[in-house]
Amino acid sequence: MKTTPDRIAQGALLSMLLELSSTPKPGNVDRSHDFEEIKFHHFLISALSAYPVFRDAALGGEPTGALILRAVSAWRGWGLSQNTHFGTIALLIPLAKAAGRGGDLREEAVRVLEETTVEDAVEFYAAFRIAGARVAEVEDLSLQDPASKDRLLSEKRTLLDLMRLSSGHDLVAREWSTGFERSFSISRILAEKVADLGINDGVVISYIEALAEVPDGLVASKFGAAKAVEVSERARSILGGEVSETLRLAGKLDDEFIEEDVNPGSTADLIAAALFIALMEGAILRSEEG
Amino acid sequence: MKTTPDRIAQGALLSMLLELSSTPKPGNVDRSHDFEEIKFHHFLISALSAYPVFRDAALGGEPTGALILRAVSAWRGWGLSQNTHFGTIALLIPLAKAAGRGGDLREEAVRVLEETTVEDAVEFYAAFRIAGARVAEVEDLSLQDPASKDRLLSEKRTLLDLMRLSSGHDLVAREWSTGFERSFSISRILAEKVADLGINDGVVISYIEALAEVPDGLVASKFGAAKAVEVSERARSILGGEVSETLRLAGKLDDEFIEEDVNPGSTADLIAAALFIALMEGAILRSEEG
Repeated sequence: MKTTPDRIAQGALLSMLLELSSTPKPGNVDRSHDFEEIKFHHFLISALSAYPVFRDAALGGEPTGALILRAVSAWRGWGLSQNTHFGTIALLIPLAKAAGRGGDLREEAVRVLEETTVEDAVEFYAAFRIAGARVAEVEDLSLQDPASKDRLLSEKRTLLDLMRLSSGHDLVAREWSTGFERSFSISRILAEKVADLGINDGVVISYIEALAEVPDGLVASKFGAAKAVEVSERARSILGGEVSETLRLAGKLDDEFIEEDVNPGSTADLIAAALFIALMEGAILRSEEG
Repeated sequence: MKTTPDRIAQGALLSMLLELSSTPKPGNVDRSHDFEEIKFHHFLISALSAYPVFRDAALGGEPTGALILRAVSAWRGWGLSQNTHFGTIALLIPLAKAAGRGGDLREEAVRVLEETTVEDAVEFYAAFRIAGARVAEVEDLSLQDPASKDRLLSEKRTLLDLMRLSSGHDLVAREWSTGFERSFSISRILAEKVADLGINDGVVISYIEALAEVPDGLVASKFGAAKAVEVSERARSILGGEVSETLRLAGKLDDEFIEEDVNPGSTADLIAAALFIALMEGAILRSEEG
């Protein structure tokens, strides 16, 4: 199957929709429940409205920051105002760009990140404000503070520089800073799980393992680091036994997390990136499975 | 919002995904349950793999039959072999083509159908065989019989002629024969329900009402006309009271239909078409709702 820009856009969209719909995914929107404010269909809309932007990313030519800004702006065209997929888009846009170049996906992805400029940082900054995303603040460079934009420009920080500054506490920034290290390692685990368990359960188990491994950035920014560590410990506590038992306990943990308003959205972003990598590398859905 | 080919493709995809994910939709795959053989993610794949075909339909130029064949073939590129969205695609391709022309959607849709040729019939025939779809047979023109293709050619039947021959027992064919009469009338009802109840419940109630109103073609072709009538009566029996009570009973009816292997897929096709019309006419999701 030739990797056309349309196929790359479909892969990006499919990775978002598979991440979204796999269930039970403790604490996040999945096809078994909505949140009060953000519904399942809002995530459908933000995913599909980014399709042409993923296609253009794969075609090459357009800068990464501008593409992220376009993707985040696109969902407004369908009447959606909440932040839904900001983190996922910040991971998938450079990956889609890399996939469009052919060659080794990870090497190309690193190159895409290294090519970012100060203008990309400014566009990302604008995307961030539109999305109203909750991300960790970058040391004294607050993304919520317009004065930071001027500093960004005067200090000539590229988007990759900006991500490196945030990499201590933000999962997306860490992926940028490490050349998608966890996204690629999770994609390999995910491909094995999907081969064993099918798509739905493979995604769910990979998500729980990823959450158990590293505290979630969104949970940390909402409730503090201690809570994020506790959430990861609770994810770890349901692993290790039979898969069927983990899935049963995942349903219960889901109820608890929702009650506590805990949604590990950064981990979901990572899973979407891992799914995209696995799809592009032909490691899942080559032939009928799941 | 300008209606670009990308926006039309997104509308088609969104209508398929909203139809798919609304729950509880008695007897059909929804986000609360899979079938044994066809899973939720298979429907995601068949929907999104048709995106470029919907875009090309909106761009105009390509014949309707060829577009339907391309859409049905596309899902194989992601390893999917089951028939999932054949009926929906047979409705949405001409509607997407009509939307791309601008002007009155229904008038343009009728024009698109009237322009179909013998070649469109042949391409549709090929699409039908690839999809392995279950549709009512056309009098003595069996779509399963290769000899029928020769008769098709020698008798110079256009795709619209073919649909008119099947309109007695096939819901998609009836829509073609009547210029999408029910699709448009259901789209108006749907828009009212969505304004009152939000997306999910609006789609579910519209589906139950549509099923109550006309026996489902897929159920009839699988179990006979009497069973299809009975299924519609059972759908009718849960309507008329409070919406919350109908939704509760819909969950129970869903369990019963699944137990009986009853899946009213033709009615789901109609709902997808109605959603697309409502989206294109700006009757739903103009601004945030649902």
